Amino acid sequence: MNRIAIRAAIHVAAVFAIYLSAAMLIPAATDLYYGNNDWQAFGFSALFMGGLALAIALATRGNTPPVNTRFGFLLVNLLWFTLAIAGAVPFMASSLELSVADAFFESVSGITTTGSTVINGLDTAPPGLLLWRSLLNFMGGLGVIALGLFLLPFLNIGGISYFKIESSDIEDRPFERFQTFTVSLIGVYTSLVTVCAICYTAAGMGTFDAVNHAMSTLATGGLSTHDTSFVRYADSPAILWIGTIFMFIGGLPFSIMILFAIRGRFDALRDPQIRVFAGYCLVFAIAVAIYLRIEQGVPFFEALTHSAFNFMSIITTTGFSSDDYTQWGPFAVACIFVATFLGGCSGSTTGGIKAYRFLILFELLANGLRRLIYPSTVQPVRYGERTVDADMQRAVVLFISSFIVLWAIATILLGATGLDLVTAMTGALTALTNVGPGLGPIIGPAGNFSSLPDTAKWILSAAMLLGRLEILSVLVLFTPTFWGR
Amino acid sequence: MNRIAIRAAIHVAAVFAIYLSAAMLIPAATDLYYGNNDWQAFGFSALFMGGLALAIALATRGNTPPVNTRFGFLLVNLLWFTLAIAGAVPFMASSLELSVADAFFESVSGITTTGSTVINGLDTAPPGLLLWRSLLNFMGGLGVIALGLFLLPFLNIGGISYFKIESSDIEDRPFERFQTFTVSLIGVYTSLVTVCAICYTAAGMGTFDAVNHAMSTLATGGLSTHDTSFVRYADSPAILWIGTIFMFIGGLPFSIMILFAIRGRFDALRDPQIRVFAGYCLVFAIAVAIYLRIEQGVPFFEALTHSAFNFMSIITTTGFSSDDYTQWGPFAVACIFVATFLGGCSGSTTGGIKAYRFLILFELLANGLRRLIYPSTVQPVRYGERTVDADMQRAVVLFISSFIVLWAIATILLGATGLDLVTAMTGALTALTNVGPGLGPIIGPAGNFSSLPDTAKWILSAAMLLGRLEILSVLVLFTPTFWGR
Repeated sequence: MNRIAIRAAIHVAAVFAIYLSAAMLIPAATDLYYGNNDWQAFGFSALFMGGLALAIALATRGNTPPVNTRFGFLLVNLLWFTLAIAGAVPFMASSLELSVADAFFESVSGITTTGSTVINGLDTAPPGLLLWRSLLNFMGGLGVIALGLFLLPFLNIGGISYFKIESSDIEDRPFERFQTFTVSLIGVYTSLVTVCAICYTAAGMGTFDAVNHAMSTLATGGLSTHDTSFVRYADSPAILWIGTIFMFIGGLPFSIMILFAIRGRFDALRDPQIRVFAGYCLVFAIAVAIYLRIEQGVPFFEALTHSAFNFMSIITTTGFSSDDYTQWGPFAVACIFVATFLGGCSGSTTGGIKAYRFLILFELLANGLRRLIYPSTVQPVRYGERTVDADMQRAVVLFISSFIVLWAIATILLGATGLDLVTAMTGALTALTNVGPGLGPIIGPAGNFSSLPDTAKWILSAAMLLGRLEILSVLVLFTPTFWGR
Repeated sequence: MNRIAIRAAIHVAAVFAIYLSAAMLIPAATDLYYGNNDWQAFGFSALFMGGLALAIALATRGNTPPVNTRFGFLLVNLLWFTLAIAGAVPFMASSLELSVADAFFESVSGITTTGSTVINGLDTAPPGLLLWRSLLNFMGGLGVIALGLFLLPFLNIGGISYFKIESSDIEDRPFERFQTFTVSLIGVYTSLVTVCAICYTAAGMGTFDAVNHAMSTLATGGLSTHDTSFVRYADSPAILWIGTIFMFIGGLPFSIMILFAIRGRFDALRDPQIRVFAGYCLVFAIAVAIYLRIEQGVPFFEALTHSAFNFMSIITTTGFSSDDYTQWGPFAVACIFVATFLGGCSGSTTGGIKAYRFLILFELLANGLRRLIYPSTVQPVRYGERTVDADMQRAVVLFISSFIVLWAIATILLGATGLDLVTAMTGALTALTNVGPGLGPIIGPAGNFSSLPDTAKWILSAAMLLGRLEILSVLVLFTPTFWGR
């Protein structure tokens, strides 16, 4: 790693921080419109962060970045870290006056589309601040799709690239296709958010809430404008089903929507990870709906509405809740715990282990068991109609292994801050998978993260960033090889 | 899988069941000696099971087993399952009159050296019954060492074989070496149990307790003759340290002791898994001792004694406890939870993931991270001075992956029986790793498994057997390939 690469990475991160600072003018305008004095906090933050970022960008310009994987890893880490810091400034400057730990946690939770919050009293918070949280979700979601489409697959992490599938295109005119893809991505993503907001409004949600919730729905972020999340819409099946559908869309590979927008074709729907993702959503939603019907006597449609909404929310790592599901009985709670691991598709806004990894893992297991019986058999590991190469197999296995190890370490560290086992364990899990709520008495769907000790908030912030960057792209920074030569 | 192979496997299992039935005469004699009427239960069980097993053995004799991996897998599964059933008979016949689910659970817990119990009132239970539980631990421990030494490595599961290391020997005179090894194994194992019993007695434990505890210490089984396990020795540092040391020995690869007995050399001590195993035992014991000293003001030596004993017990998957460590504070509980995954060395009596898998996993991770940075680099994965071949890498990865998946499934199933999340999750874990106690209000070190619903006991019994047979050797039975052609 040489100085030019580091300077070039800082430059790119600073440029993105300028854009983020410019975005602070949106909540500033909102607060002005609503006559809330907090517009000054956003105006000040935009000026301060924008100026600082501009100075850094100018100071580091003129360095041509090397096109290699090390630069890719460095840039990804620096980008998310920088944007998390920049995003935290308005929280400190606002009338809520969050502490450094709280502001950083909230910003990381937003930008990583986790959706955990340390803020009490959202219902009376300034509208600009609420919008800022939703915007962080929105931008974080867009960022992670871009990451999954353009960068991670080339670093052999993060899964299935549709660029790689369409390699003939990229070899022809790489930059042109990159531009087309980026424009289409932003277009598709923004359109979906708009449609979602219109649907929410049509179903009876207030406009401001609908806009905010639409952003955190498609980003599978989960930050809400209310302390109780979607509990206030618990009696509106329409709103809950709209949420369920758009969270599901947020869990699909965005390349599908993009290819449709560019070419009007839906080929990518044959992607087997979509079947796995849809499959486990259905199984959990229906199983727990039946359980609620039988054990608690809830009418079936009502049970299915809430089961589908909350499991879609957990599986897509969104984190909304329409009810305190910790009260649904032990089977439902065990299912929620396991669902927290799952995630959606590669190239979506979701976190977690993700459907394609489970698919490849299952293929590896079936293949491995056959080889235990006939050691000389060599059969390829399949992903749909394609063969999974050794690099991809390794990436899947390393991801899952390091995920489990990091989960164990984070659980112990959180235990050391004094948190009970369930809070420590599910807190570490929900942060690493970018889900949002955990289980237990403090951080469950009816609670929040405000009362945790600062140390725990820092640990969880680190875990959210690790999870969002697919763990391995952060871990490489801690190898001597990365910094060598 | 053909009929001859199945008949041959049944024959071998029946022969072993005859030995197990003969072993029931030991508790029968014990109860006679102590004047307890329960001797009849053991006498009856020995006759009934012995007769049944003899009949089956005679009916299936004369089939030469095929020497292939499928026969190996079939035999291993059938053996443990048969012995678990045979071992359950005395529990049903005894004066405690356990139900079928309880008796099978207790027998499985014994033979898999897990050490969970469903019996309340051990302190007043017939001595023969207590001895039978210890004998199940003893025989289960011996069986699993034999499995790890002679069979699993050839099925490409279960790890490092010293036969494979010493392949020149086995190629020369395989059968002779097999006999020498078996005799030495039994000699070494029995000697260690004897020495342990003498040490316990010398430190003040009653002779009957010392003999029983010595068997479940070396087997890292953990069944105790008292409801409160080692709490009654909580004030005897000598007894606790003897337990700690012999549990550690039970966690070492027995091939070391055997090679020493045969050749008088300790070469195998260079095995890197021993350093890893000793390393994590030390780290947990000392960290929690310091925590207990600081947070609860326990004198350091006392804190270290209890921390070392209980962490050694959990890490080696024994399951004794000298205190209700769920009261030690959140950091200690989180550590206990994580320690439940660990296990000792390959070729020991311990369960869990085991040190050599962590070592290989770490090497795979370091190797994989290097390859993310330099994709063209090909470096071998090392285990000490040896290279880990692709089969071994695959087996490690498949074991850990299927372990996690089975853990999730078992947690959901246990949740469905009505158990709370902590009980379901740690119950499933402690069964799969053959540790013994879980966490939470029911199955913690101060509790037991008696109050669980029968369905939960069956699920846990299955999990204990899966864990004991290193998961994959059971899973192969569920592939079409296994039963094909």
